[in-house]
This record gives sequence, C-alpha cells and structure tokens, in this order.
Amino acid sequence: MKNKELEKNTPWDDLHEECGVFGMYDFDGHDVASTIYYGLFALQHRGQESCGIAVSKTDGPKGKVTTHKDMGLVNEVFTQDILESMKGDIGVGHVRYSTAGASTRENAQPLVLNYVKGTLGLAHNGNLINANELRRELEYTGAIFQTTIDSEVIAYHIARERLNSDNVEEAVRRAAQKIQGAFALVVMSPRKLIGARDPYGFKPLCIGKRDNAYILTSESCALDTLGAEFVRDVLPGEVVTITPEKGIVSDTTMCLEKERQARCIFEYIYFARPDSQIDGIGVYDSRIKAGRFLAMDSPVEADLVVGVPESGNAAALGYAMESGIPYGTAFVKNGYVGRTFIKPKQSNRESSVKIKLNVLKEAVDGKRVIMIDDSIVRGTTSDRIVRMLRDAGATEVHVRISSPPFLWPCYFGTDIPEREQLIAYNRTIEEIRDVIGADSLGYLEIPRLEELVNGLSICKGCFTGKYPMEPPKEDIRGDFER
Amino acid sequence: MKNKELEKNTPWDDLHEECGVFGMYDFDGHDVASTIYYGLFALQHRGQESCGIAVSKTDGPKGKVTTHKDMGLVNEVFTQDILESMKGDIGVGHVRYSTAGASTRENAQPLVLNYVKGTLGLAHNGNLINANELRRELEYTGAIFQTTIDSEVIAYHIARERLNSDNVEEAVRRAAQKIQGAFALVVMSPRKLIGARDPYGFKPLCIGKRDNAYILTSESCALDTLGAEFVRDVLPGEVVTITPEKGIVSDTTMCLEKERQARCIFEYIYFARPDSQIDGIGVYDSRIKAGRFLAMDSPVEADLVVGVPESGNAAALGYAMESGIPYGTAFVKNGYVGRTFIKPKQSNRESSVKIKLNVLKEAVDGKRVIMIDDSIVRGTTSDRIVRMLRDAGATEVHVRISSPPFLWPCYFGTDIPEREQLIAYNRTIEEIRDVIGADSLGYLEIPRLEELVNGLSICKGCFTGKYPMEPPKEDIRGDFER
Amino acid sequence: MKNKELEKNTPWDDLHEECGVFGMYDFDGHDVASTIYYGLFALQHRGQESCGIAVSKTDGPKGKVTTHKDMGLVNEVFTQDILESMKGDIGVGHVRYSTAGASTRENAQPLVLNYVKGTLGLAHNGNLINANELRRELEYTGAIFQTTIDSEVIAYHIARERLNSDNVEEAVRRAAQKIQGAFALVVMSPRKLIGARDPYGFKPLCIGKRDNAYILTSESCALDTLGAEFVRDVLPGEVVTITPEKGIVSDTTMCLEKERQARCIFEYIYFARPDSQIDGIGVYDSRIKAGRFLAMDSPVEADLVVGVPESGNAAALGYAMESGIPYGTAFVKNGYVGRTFIKPKQSNRESSVKIKLNVLKEAVDGKRVIMIDDSIVRGTTSDRIVRMLRDAGATEVHVRISSPPFLWPCYFGTDIPEREQLIAYNRTIEEIRDVIGADSLGYLEIPRLEELVNGLSICKGCFTGKYPMEPPKEDIRGDFER
Amino acid sequence: MKNKELEKNTPWDDLHEECGVFGMYDFDGHDVASTIYYGLFALQHRGQESCGIAVSKTDGPKGKVTTHKDMGLVNEVFTQDILESMKGDIGVGHVRYSTAGASTRENAQPLVLNYVKGTLGLAHNGNLINANELRRELEYTGAIFQTTIDSEVIAYHIARERLNSDNVEEAVRRAAQKIQGAFALVVMSPRKLIGARDPYGFKPLCIGKRDNAYILTSESCALDTLGAEFVRDVLPGEVVTITPEKGIVSDTTMCLEKERQARCIFEYIYFARPDSQIDGIGVYDSRIKAGRFLAMDSPVEADLVVGVPESGNAAALGYAMESGIPYGTAFVKNGYVGRTFIKPKQSNRESSVKIKLNVLKEAVDGKRVIMIDDSIVRGTTSDRIVRMLRDAGATEVHVRISSPPFLWPCYFGTDIPEREQLIAYNRTIEEIRDVIGADSLGYLEIPRLEELVNGLSICKGCFTGKYPMEPPKEDIRGDFER
Repeated sequence: MKNKELEKNTPWDDLHEECGVFGMYDFDGHDVASTIYYGLFALQHRGQESCGIAVSKTDGPKGKVTTHKDMGLVNEVFTQDILESMKGDIGVGHVRYSTAGASTRENAQPLVLNYVKGTLGLAHNGNLINANELRRELEYTGAIFQTTIDSEVIAYHIARERLNSDNVEEAVRRAAQKIQGAFALVVMSPRKLIGARDPYGFKPLCIGKRDNAYILTSESCALDTLGAEFVRDVLPGEVVTITPEKGIVSDTTMCLEKERQARCIFEYIYFARPDSQIDGIGVYDSRIKAGRFLAMDSPVEADLVVGVPESGNAAALGYAMESGIPYGTAFVKNGYVGRTFIKPKQSNRESSVKIKLNVLKEAVDGKRVIMIDDSIVRGTTSDRIVRMLRDAGATEVHVRISSPPFLWPCYFGTDIPEREQLIAYNRTIEEIRDVIGADSLGYLEIPRLEELVNGLSICKGCFTGKYPMEPPKEDIRGDFER
Repeated sequence: MKNKELEKNTPWDDLHEECGVFGMYDFDGHDVASTIYYGLFALQHRGQESCGIAVSKTDGPKGKVTTHKDMGLVNEVFTQDILESMKGDIGVGHVRYSTAGASTRENAQPLVLNYVKGTLGLAHNGNLINANELRRELEYTGAIFQTTIDSEVIAYHIARERLNSDNVEEAVRRAAQKIQGAFALVVMSPRKLIGARDPYGFKPLCIGKRDNAYILTSESCALDTLGAEFVRDVLPGEVVTITPEKGIVSDTTMCLEKERQARCIFEYIYFARPDSQIDGIGVYDSRIKAGRFLAMDSPVEADLVVGVPESGNAAALGYAMESGIPYGTAFVKNGYVGRTFIKPKQSNRESSVKIKLNVLKEAVDGKRVIMIDDSIVRGTTSDRIVRMLRDAGATEVHVRISSPPFLWPCYFGTDIPEREQLIAYNRTIEEIRDVIGADSLGYLEIPRLEELVNGLSICKGCFTGKYPMEPPKEDIRGDFER
Repeated sequence: MKNKELEKNTPWDDLHEECGVFGMYDFDGHDVASTIYYGLFALQHRGQESCGIAVSKTDGPKGKVTTHKDMGLVNEVFTQDILESMKGDIGVGHVRYSTAGASTRENAQPLVLNYVKGTLGLAHNGNLINANELRRELEYTGAIFQTTIDSEVIAYHIARERLNSDNVEEAVRRAAQKIQGAFALVVMSPRKLIGARDPYGFKPLCIGKRDNAYILTSESCALDTLGAEFVRDVLPGEVVTITPEKGIVSDTTMCLEKERQARCIFEYIYFARPDSQIDGIGVYDSRIKAGRFLAMDSPVEADLVVGVPESGNAAALGYAMESGIPYGTAFVKNGYVGRTFIKPKQSNRESSVKIKLNVLKEAVDGKRVIMIDDSIVRGTTSDRIVRMLRDAGATEVHVRISSPPFLWPCYFGTDIPEREQLIAYNRTIEEIRDVIGADSLGYLEIPRLEELVNGLSICKGCFTGKYPMEPPKEDIRGDFER
Repeated sequence: MKNKELEKNTPWDDLHEECGVFGMYDFDGHDVASTIYYGLFALQHRGQESCGIAVSKTDGPKGKVTTHKDMGLVNEVFTQDILESMKGDIGVGHVRYSTAGASTRENAQPLVLNYVKGTLGLAHNGNLINANELRRELEYTGAIFQTTIDSEVIAYHIARERLNSDNVEEAVRRAAQKIQGAFALVVMSPRKLIGARDPYGFKPLCIGKRDNAYILTSESCALDTLGAEFVRDVLPGEVVTITPEKGIVSDTTMCLEKERQARCIFEYIYFARPDSQIDGIGVYDSRIKAGRFLAMDSPVEADLVVGVPESGNAAALGYAMESGIPYGTAFVKNGYVGRTFIKPKQSNRESSVKIKLNVLKEAVDGKRVIMIDDSIVRGTTSDRIVRMLRDAGATEVHVRISSPPFLWPCYFGTDIPEREQLIAYNRTIEEIRDVIGADSLGYLEIPRLEELVNGLSICKGCFTGKYPMEPPKEDIRGDFER
C-alpha cells in the first residue's frame, strides 16, 4: 500500500494505514460469508476505502467463486441479501485503507482469478519492493495487468509457479520466494485455505478456530469478536495450508533466523487494535509500556496526563501509572466523521481540527497538562491541539510522543509523506517543540522500541533509515499508474 | 419522541435518545447552510435517524424556503452540491434519533409550511403530553395531519395563534402556552429567528454568536465546533426573538419560579456531549461528580476502575479520583457500527455484545474491577459485559451505576421500555446484582441528583414516579399512528 | 399542474403533461399494491417526475396506511421488496409529470393524511383555478400547508366538510363543489374508494372491474393492461363511491347539462394513450380522424405521409388513408432518453434533436413529404426536423398539425408557455410556415375539434381564449411557492 | 456473447442481443468523453446491461487511462460530473447486452490493461469460437483471468504478439489471426486508435469523421447522431490504424475473397437500427425488401398489414407497399419497461405480454389482419399476440415472419436457445401455425436472404446449420464460469 499521506494526523481520519485480510474454511460445510463479514468488521480499522468477500463451495463444480466488493465500509458494501446469496464453506475477505484519488473500484480485493488449475481468491496486506520489476518481467513475457495492486503480481507468480509445482501451496511458497517486501497473504483455492507471511514478518497474521472451522486473520481481535479461539501466529516466513484431511500443514522453508525478522513496530504503536496480540505481545501492553518509558525518560512535573484520542490513550495511561500524575480526559472526539464528510474550505470559519476534536475546558483549566500522541507527521495538527488546550486554560502543555521521530520513507506499507514534509526532517527536537508551541517535547527513544515488544526483532527503518533488506533504488511509491 | 427502546444499552447503538435543533441568522447576509451542516454534525449524537436543513433569504421574495431532509446521518444526507444550492442567510436544522420501524421520511424535520403570514421552518426537540388531545381538537375543526410528529401540532397552533397575535413571536409564545410537555423549539419566519424552551426546561437550548450571526443550538458543544462564542442559555419558559434590528429580545411571560423547573437529569448523565454546558453546569463535571458520589456512597476495595464506553468513562474517572483506586481501560469498542449494520441472527455464533465490545485481557486479568455504567435498563447487556470481564480474568466485578434505578415511564422524551421489562421493576438491588452476576452493585442515590447540577431544579420522574406536571391518563406513547 | 413548458416539443421528452391517478379496492381482501404498480406503469406516459402508492387494510385498525413515493419512474421507485411490504386491499396510486426545478419530493402524491375521521389517501389530476384563494381563506382560519400541490387544498376541504357531512363521500362532494377547475380525484378512506370528476369533465376518469375488485383509473388502457374489464366512465360532475356493501353508488348532484361540459381536447390529440377510450370515444380513432380532416382541409400533392413519432403517427395514417398518398416512416427515435440524460451544452457539436431523432434517408430521399405533428409550440423543434428531412433529400416538406394554433394560456392543467414564446402569437400561418421552413403548413381547423369526438362538448380555450368558466384574474401559474 | 435466451421474443425487452463498440480520437486534443457518451447512447439498442468509457490524453505521461463503467444504461451510469472528470482526446466506449444472471460488473467493458508497452483500452463485439482453447493454452503458460469475457483472451494475445511485433497494430492483427469467430474490435493504445473486423465480417464496424476527429463505431446511426460524416465501413478482415500523422492506415492481410465473407444477416433483420448503413446496405431498405418478398412469396387476402413493434414495422410497410393492402398500426407498446421492472409472477393476474403490448381495438376490429414479426423463437409470445388480435375482433390473423425459421445454434454472438426449445425444431410450418393459432403462416425463404443485401455474402448458419467455419465440437456456450 503506498502513495498516500499518513492521514492519521489529519484531523479527519484517525485511520490506520493498512489492509486487513481474513480467510475461513468450515470443514462442516456451513456458509462462511456471514462470519467473514463480522471478521472484516473487526478489522475495519485497518482499511476503510473498500472491502470485499469471495466464497466458494468446496464440494461445488470447478471452484466457482461468488464475489462481492466495492468502495466503502463493510456495513455500507454488504446487505443481508448479498450475504445470504454468497454460498460457500471457504472464503476470503479484505478491507482496504482509504486514499484520496488513486483508489478505484478496480483495485478492491479479494482478487479472484482463473488459472490453469481452477480458481484462486487472494487477499493481501503489505507492500512489495520489487513489484515494478516483477511487473516488467511479466510484461516482457506477455502478461497483462488490470489493476495497480501488488496482489495481481503475486497472483501471476502463483499461476506460473503452479506449472512446475506439485500443488498450490508449493506454488504459493515459490511465488512468495520471488516477491520481496511485506506481505500477509490469504489464498483460497478450490479446496484449500493457505496463509503466508513474509520472512521478515512485517505484517501480522494468525490462525484461529471455532468449532470445526479454521480462520486466518490479520489480528486476533477478530477472533474474540467471533467467539473463536486463538490457535497461534503464522510464523514470519511460514506458509500454512489448511485442509480437512490434514488440518494445518506448515512449510517453514522460507523462515529466517529470529534476529533477521523485522516486524513493523508501528503495528504495536498505532495500526493494530489494542485488544490484539501479535507474535505473543499484547498491543495494549506495548502501548502502556511506551507511556511508562516516556515517563521514565522524559519526566516533567504536571497536574494531568491526557491522550489524543483514540491512539494516544493507552500510552497516556502508562505515563500516568509510571509518573503518578493523574490520568484524565481532555478531548471529546466526534465519532461521526465518515468517508463522505464535507471538509470545510479554507475560506470557511470552521476548522477541521475543531470539528473533530473539542477540549473539555473544565478538565484542563488551570492545569499543567502532559499530552500524549503516537506520532507527529507534519506537525500542523499537533500545533492546533496544543493551542486548543491553552485556549481552554491549560497553563502548560507538555507533549510526549510514543514513537521516535519519523525521518525516513517506509517501503513496506506505511504511508509516510516526502521527507520535506516531515516536521522532524532537518529540525532538532527543540525546533519541533517550538513549531508546535509546546512547553516541552519528548519522543520515545529508539532503543526503547525493542523493549516494547519484549525483545522481538523489529523494523525501525522509518526512524533510522536502516532497513532489513536493501531498499529499492527507484522511488517505488506511485510509480505504476494505470 | 416516543415509542422506542432505550437503545443505548443494546450493544448496537450507544445512541442518545433525543433530537438536536439548530438555528442561525447571519445579519451580514452570508449563507448559513454550510455552518448549519457543521452544527448538526456536532449534535449528531442526539439523533442518527434522519436530518434536515431549511434555509431562506431574508431579502428574498415571500419567504421562499429551500429544504433538504432525509433518513440518515448528516454526512450521508448532504453533499457539497446540495449545500451549495441552499442559499439563505437564515435557517434551521434538525437531527432526529433512530428508531426501528416507525421512522419514515415524512417525519424528518425541519417542518416547513406556509401559513397566513408566509413561511415557517420549525425544528423541535421534546415530547408533548397533550399532543393527542390537541390533535383531536384541531381535527374537530377540520385540520389535516401529514406526519406523526408533535412539531406539526405545534405548527398548527402557531398558525392559529398568529391570527390573533401582533407578530410571529407572540404567536409562538401563545402556542407554547397551549402545548404541554417538553420542548426546545427553533422557528424561522421570513425575517426572524425564534427560540423557545418549555417552562420546565426539560430540554436544553442556548444562544451563540459568531461575527455578526446568531445561533440557537441544543448544546453548546456545537458552538465550540464552529468557533462561535457562547452567549447564554435560553431560560426555561423563555421565548427569544432574534432580528438584526433588535438583536435578542426576550419574552419571559411563561417562565416559572425556579423551584418548579424540571430539567431532564439524563441530559447530564447520558444524553448530552460531555463538552457541553447546560444551564451553567458542565456535563463532564456533573459526570465526574456522579462518579465521586458513587465512590463515597458505594465504596468497595478493588484494583481498577473502568467505564463502559463511552458514557461510563467520565464517572469512572470521578470514582477513581475520589477512591484513589487506579483508573484504567478495560474495553475496546468498535466504532464502525452504523445504521445499516446487519445484526447477527440468534442462530449465529456471533454475539451482538462481542461484536461491539471486546475486553482488554491484559488490563483486567487477575484484578478486582469496578465497572461504571450510566444506567441499567433490561440488564441483559450488563450481564454479558460482567461475564466478559470474568472470562478475561477479573477476579471480582463490582458494578456501579451513575444514576438511580429506572422504575417509571418518561413522558417527556426519553424512551424507557414498559415497566415489566425494566430490571429494577419489582427487584431489590440484591436481586438485580444477582441477575447481572456482579459481586456488588451500587446505584447513585436519588438525593445526589440535585448535587450533580449544583442544586438546579430537575425532573426525577423516571426514578420516583413523581412528575413535574400531571402525567397523561392514557398511554401517549405510540398511540397515534398514521 | 402548472408552470411548466410544454416539453413535448423539446426534443428531450415526448412527455405528456399530466398526472395519472389510480385506485383499487379488492373486496376479497387481496393485496392491491402490485396491481396498482402495473396500473401506474400503464399510466406512466401521463407523468414521469414522481410516483407513489398508498395502501390500507380495510379490516385493519384505525385505517393505518402504508405509503411509498419518490421522484422517478414507477420502475425506479418501486422494488419487489417494497411492493411486498405494502399490505392492503384498498389503495391509491399516482404518477406525476416532469418539470425542471419546482418539482420536489414533498410534492409527490398520493397525499396521505389524518383527519377527524381517520386516514385519507388522495390522488389528483388537474388544476384548480381558485386554489390560491382557497389557500388564503384556509390560512385565514389557521391552516398550514406543507406542499404546493392543489391536492392539499382539496384535502383540507374534505376534512372541513366532513364535520358537517354524514359520510366521507358527501364531504368529498361538498369539497368538490367549492373547488373550481379541473380535477379527476381518487380518494381512499378506511373502507371506501371514491372517485370524482369535475363538472366540466376536463380530465378523464373511468371505472374497471376484475374479479371481485373495482378500479378507478385515468385511462382505460390501464384496464387492458391488467386484464380488467371496462365498466364505464365516471361522468363529468359525478362522485362515485365503491364499497363491498353497495358496489358503485353514484352522486350526480354536481353534474351539468351536457352542453356545458368541457373535456380537454388535448387528451384526445396528444395526452392520452391511443389505446384508451375516453367518454365513449377512442383516442386512436379521433387521431385518425384529425389526419383525415387535415387531408380534406389542407390537401397537398406529395409522395409520402409521415408522422413525427410517436404522437404524430396516427394522424399521419389518417391523412394517408384519406388522401391515398402512401404512409411511411421517416424517423427513428431513440427511446432511451431518460430523466437523468445529460443534455448537450450549447458549446457541444451534438444537437438535442439529432440525439433524439434520426431521419431514414432512404425513406425520404427524392420525395415530397407531408410531415404530421400534433402541435407546434415555439417552433424551434419543427424548424430543425424540417431541415433534417431536407438534408436527407426530401424535395418538399409540407407540415400538417393535428390541432389548431396555440394562442391562449390554459388554466386547467396543460402547460403552455407565455404567449410571447408561442410561435403562433402575432404571426400568420404563412409567417409560421416561413419560420419553420416548410413548403406549406396547415393546422386543424377549430370547428373540426368537436367532430373528432363525435360532438362531445369540449374546452377549446387554448385556441380561442374562450373558457368554460371565468378564468382567474391573477396569473395563477406559479404564484404559490413554498 | 453467449448463454442467453433470445430475449427479444419475451415481452419484456425488445432487446437487441449484441454489444456496441465506439472509439474516437480527436487530433485537435479536445476531450472525447462527452461525444463518446452520445455515441454510446445511439448504440444503446445493442446492449442495455452495462456500459463504459475509457479515455486517455495522447500528450499525457505513460498512457494514463481514466475509466468508468458499471451495470446499467448509459444515462444511468454516467453523470455530468463523471463525464467532465474524464479528460482525454482518445477513448473507447462499449455497451453490453442484458442477461439474467451471468452478468457482473467485472465483465463490463472496455477492458483496460497494462502490458509491456503501456496501456491498452479494448472494446469488443462478437463471440470467439476458440476462446476456451485459447484460454487453456494461455493458462498452461501461467496466465490468469479475471473476467469471463472473450476480450480478455484477445487482450492477452495482443500483449504476447506485441513482443514480436514492430508496433501495436501489427500485434492486433497477429492476435486477430489467432482468434476465431466473430469480432468487431476497437483498441486504444497511448497514441493510436485501432479498429479490426474479423475476416468473415460477422459484426459491423465503420469509420466516421467530424472536424479533425476520427470515430470508429458499430453502426453508422451514431455518426448521424453526432453530426459526423460517414467515411467508410471497415472491411471484413481489415485492421485500420488511426493516427494524426498518417490518418487511416489499412492492413488487409487478413481479408478473404468476398464470397467467403459471412455477415450476420440478423444485423439487417433485427439487431441494427433501421437508420444504419452496413457494408453499403441500408438496414431499413433491407427490411422493406423482406416485407416485399413476403408479400410476393406468401400472399394472402386481407384488410390490414401491421407490424409487431418495433422491429416488425418496416417489413410490414414493405408488405403493404408490395401487396397494396393498407398498412396500419395495431399495437401500442409501453416504452417504459426498464432493467429494473418487476415481472409479474405466475400467480398474478397480470400478463407480461399485456403489460408490454396493447391492441388498438378500433384498428383491427372486424378486419383480416396480416401481422409481421421478425422471428419466432419459442412461439409463446406469438401465440399470445395472435390471441390478443382475435380478442380485439380481428376475423383472421395471418402471420408473416421476415426471416426463415431458426433451427440451429449460433456460435458467433446471437443467443439462440437450445434446439429443443425452438418452435421450428421438429415441426412443419403447418404445425407451427397451429401452435401459434394463426390462420396462415409464412416465413421468408432462405434464398431471399442474399437478396435483402444485394448479394453480399452472409452467414445463414442459424437457418441452415452450415457455418462459414467449422463449429466447435464442444458446446462453447457458457462453458467457462468464474
């Protein structure tokens, strides 16, 4: 996923910049579309642009697939009638994140296609760094592309590898070995559900079970929602194949030694839902810890600790716990901002930030406030929020950020703007503090990142410029346009 | 507003059971539709069923009015094109709450009508207790009704009183004297903006100002959103008339002595946005207080205080402050449930509560938890949430409710189910505790209610069965159907 | 119906400028919504702007009515689901004609209202000339109006007259005696279906029967469509009441002597479907006759007679029969122009007429062509069509019009533009011929009009300026705006 | 196009079973989307299921293409806003015919894709007989398919051939040489507009010009609509390439000797609009001729000749001309039946045929009628229409069909049902006459077919079972399902 502003810090959408994938195979033959719907609903925070479900009957002829996908939220795209018309005991689903212009219905997932062995359904979260190369290679052998999503490149490779593979899971693994970058992949073949995670483990993927049905999902919170049990995470580099005959079969050919793994730390800091567990680490816990570390490393005297909703709240609680300074609520967020909201024009008196956030004057008036947010991208929103706190009577505003400063591009799925637009680029902490008008400013320190996740190996590229694999020479973001 | 389940305690909609009204008159002649849009957006929590805006040009001919209203949220019903086509420097807007079946497009507000003196636009929040009588009286003189909303009855009375009144504001006041019950009313005549509040002050209404424009709005949070200043509350029983010639003119003929006023206490406890001020009392503050009172009156030893989101959070914070027990977050709420969400069938494995709320296991595991909610209606949701906390490892669950037990019907706009369905009906506190499976249960005590609002006179009818005016003999709820 | 261009002669819509009404009462208790749907579909040519159906169960409580109406064609507004949800054995339906701006959803019919005796559903075709007076009178006694349609005035009168009437049909008749102008009315009360036609009989209305169900409909073609039998026309001035107890009961109090009747002759010439019978006269036959008269009165030598589709075809056939000159087809009309079609801008190379009509070159090349149309309003379209024929090789183009020249306004439901825009205003036939570029031009002569309908008494106001009743002093068209 | 009932003879849709293609390149750089819209509108009779437009700027970077396509009619799918947002001086458009279930948004055209040399837009009318073979071949080399339309197979071949071709037009021609069957193809490359027609010329395609812009269109009627001039037909087997540098460049490599050409005769009899010219023959003329031949070969004494609208009218006129029996109109057709019309259930009293067609009693009563239709497929509709004529008083009904009996499947784009469902299968003319209840029945004789088109070489496969190329062994219709 690429080519998009990190919108989160705009006041419009506290959006997570990701996709969510979901797969389900019910060995008892029950229809899965409705459960996938609720599963996607639990993953909705990972993508609000478009969504889709594809299902198939494993006892049906020729792997016939029923698909429905469109722009919009899960509850906008699907109706009772549509869900009921989707018959099948195996299926995949997808939610896609929201971008301004490049988003089109053609790019909605899952991708469904016919190839030499029947039909495949494919849902993908992540970003390939060699997608353009692979596209060109494929085009030089006569391939055609109808979308601009990486999933189509992956699908092609699976189809080609299938010609020399004994089975579809081998083809998936061979394809996975050719593509480079971040991917959590769910593939449905006529009678198999397959999950794959890139060797670095950038993107999360886990396995669940309910009665006699298996589930693959980006986040474990979807399992709770469905009343399913958590089985385990798919390992970085692992390909799992789920069939009634053999249950879960694991192929770990691609797995790397643990130290080379490179989970995206932003899943913990911001993307994932706090009630999810990723690779054994609770997201909520890691955010509490981030707040504690900030309290240890950037202490300040104050009367109140508050979070910028929603993502700053857990770290604020951690800061309060560690510092002993009372936790409070300073903001009321209007939760009704939707995809079709009309943004105020520059000429209007209304301001975007005010429409989305309001300060609880009585909570902050006369107080020294510590305000916790998960990141600062351009700084414009932080600036306004700090001012709103002061207008409401806060005597001091101390900003603490539960991640280090953004300084480098991400090639693996997080949309970070051009360096020139990053407030931290070419500025000292003191200069940033000055821009946003805070009394003091503290960031989480880079060495703390591993501590958040109990020492798991992570990717810190956007903070350090050091990536787990060679970044592409060309700017891959937005290079390919239909 | 009537005939609807108090839905808040269903897991689907943490909905506020009200309507929101908004009016604006820009003396400089600027178009107001776009600002009304953002104002309604800030009042969206008061009604998600339908919404509408009506505007007029005060220098135009014959008070021509442009109206747009439909079922849906503000950002679903209005587009940029529609807003831009709505020309006018005076206007009214309305958001209506969501009901299951009785809701129809015909009943959307504002009501726009022609009468002897031109055109009126009318937006109303509240419930009349003599609406049926008044309807019948009007029908016996040949009136026809095209909707089932009380606003039509009010409109008729204004039109009739206008025949014997010197001006429209007098007609509004005379009409207001005939209708009984709860009303906050915004009326737009060709060249006047009028606000009226029933003598008891059940429903809130306040005045704001931005540049050379005046605003009437149900809640002050809309003024903050718009960058407008708060001027004052409309008094219970007051009729205010806003014109460029005279600014705000007040008619207090209907006002009662302060002790007879009867604000709906549930505006403070639950309906209003915490960042609003009503009659001089901050909603957030009153909720913090409710929590403190619970801590004083129903103390219990525990490790953690948590709120059921969103409405329980402020009281939970108050409880934590008062008790010294740490405040925490125990729940993650899925904010994407919308009007069109498909509820799981009984036969499904998915449960409504789980789809909406998930527990943060790591936050509550091994802990004694105090869980604060604003009310218990039927008890089914509370029961499930308590169980979820226990499943997540809470060793004790103590429930505290920031209002007294519901025991009586409300005739003034809050939808409370039949007594037989109320968990508190014919049950002791201990029996209720047993039903919901809590280790202990405490309600806010009735005498505390006035304290929440610094001694303002309030209505406690739903708790005590003693109403500020004689309740209707017949069951007025749902009696009139088209 | 008023205030609208006679659109038919625009190239966009060969639209009939009317409304269609439909009512049905099934004495066996079967649901009628679906049959009303097909009935309205057969009347769709009378109105494409909006449509609606209201149904009620005669054995249900309190005359509860289910209504669905919206902007659009019958097959756009109704779905299978909606129809199936509309339960009731009595119902009324309406199609409304298309205008540019004044049309709003609020004005869609049927009008459904509560009054002293329960619920009424009302569908109306026609135009009152004293509607504004009546409105004002009503307003002076405190009435309010929520739409700008005459039906609301009629409904008020029915409601008021009901207070002094023994039954609803008497109230309908008393109301009908107060309103002046053109009306064909279908009214549904909780247990009666009532039809009324103004004393002049401007607008058609007839009675049909299928099995044990009675039908009221603007045109008999709807009866054929439904497989129902034609019972008889409602007489001008008659009020018919249909109940299971008494069948059809007739009240002829209002009827005038036959010579004072004043049917709209344009129903025969243009509005009605050719397969309808109105007051004993076949519409198709009357058009054939118009053609024959043109051949007798305005003969010309030529090779081919063609009609401007669709409405000119029957008269062309009549001309051909009478003259012996072969009938042919010269035009292909694109039938897919719909409500949402994007009209070409002036700056475009595309022309409205060409997009709608194309000439069959091989049919007219080298021929002397007689082209029959039903009317000329502004003359711009006729001018273009004549030119298209010449461009296709016609050596001569003789235009014959199956009605006399429009010279005067219509106050009874036909939208004729301002006199200044009428091509016939202040122009001789020769001058008109010159404007449209024809080789010769002939209109139907006024005395022939009665002959078209076998001597029935008709209104010729738009041709002669002599109206069957005193026309209003003020210009009533478009006077009342919300 | 396949797998669909010949719907025309159902009473619902007098639909033409085809697709329409359109391409435009404006050398002056003006936007073409709006003109393509009007062009598609003129081709709407060839397909009502879905439509689409793709445009590109020839001076833009990398051949970026803007596409919009969806289910529905041209005036439902496109709005002013959408058209205005589609910038580009080169573009292609498509209308697709309506089927019941197999139709999906994924299958809408134009197909837009990236391949080795940039972007292609592709619109296709016709049916390949070796599509399945070609699909399988491609799949065996790793291809993936995302739609079930033949166009995707064609696109793949163009992309593959491009690798060994000097330019895109050579690739199109090489691809065209591999595919077998019927195709009229419009291809847009970043800077070239290419048209191709299969060697047999099954489907029509012609070239037009307006100012400095070239047009490719299925039928010439679209050129008249746009005010463009007809340049010439694309020859069967020809590939034309249109560029500003060289104008029209022709590649006739694939062309066959004239006697081997095999135009679909049904384009003349039924599919095409009567105002189109195909390969030098006027469609209207050929239908007049068909009527004349019927009069010569199947004469009968009668009082009136009528056509079943719309397609039977021209032949009826021809019959009348030749026989001297007067031409008349017997039917009124309801033109408002749309895609979303709700068909009456079997249990309803309403009949599909009656809802669509009504008889003009006064036109046929007491007369001996000759009724002309273009074909009989199953016979059920003919049976009902004959009965309607008799019910209206026709004393005799003689049916004449302007084509020979359908006896064989079509592999080239016309949807003819299974043989078992064809009324002519295993029945003599006399037996068919008996089934439909006519007094006499006559078909056009097979030798007359060439005469209709002045001796052009045509395909008569559906009448004779002798096809211009070897038909596929397997039943290709509907074999491939996603």
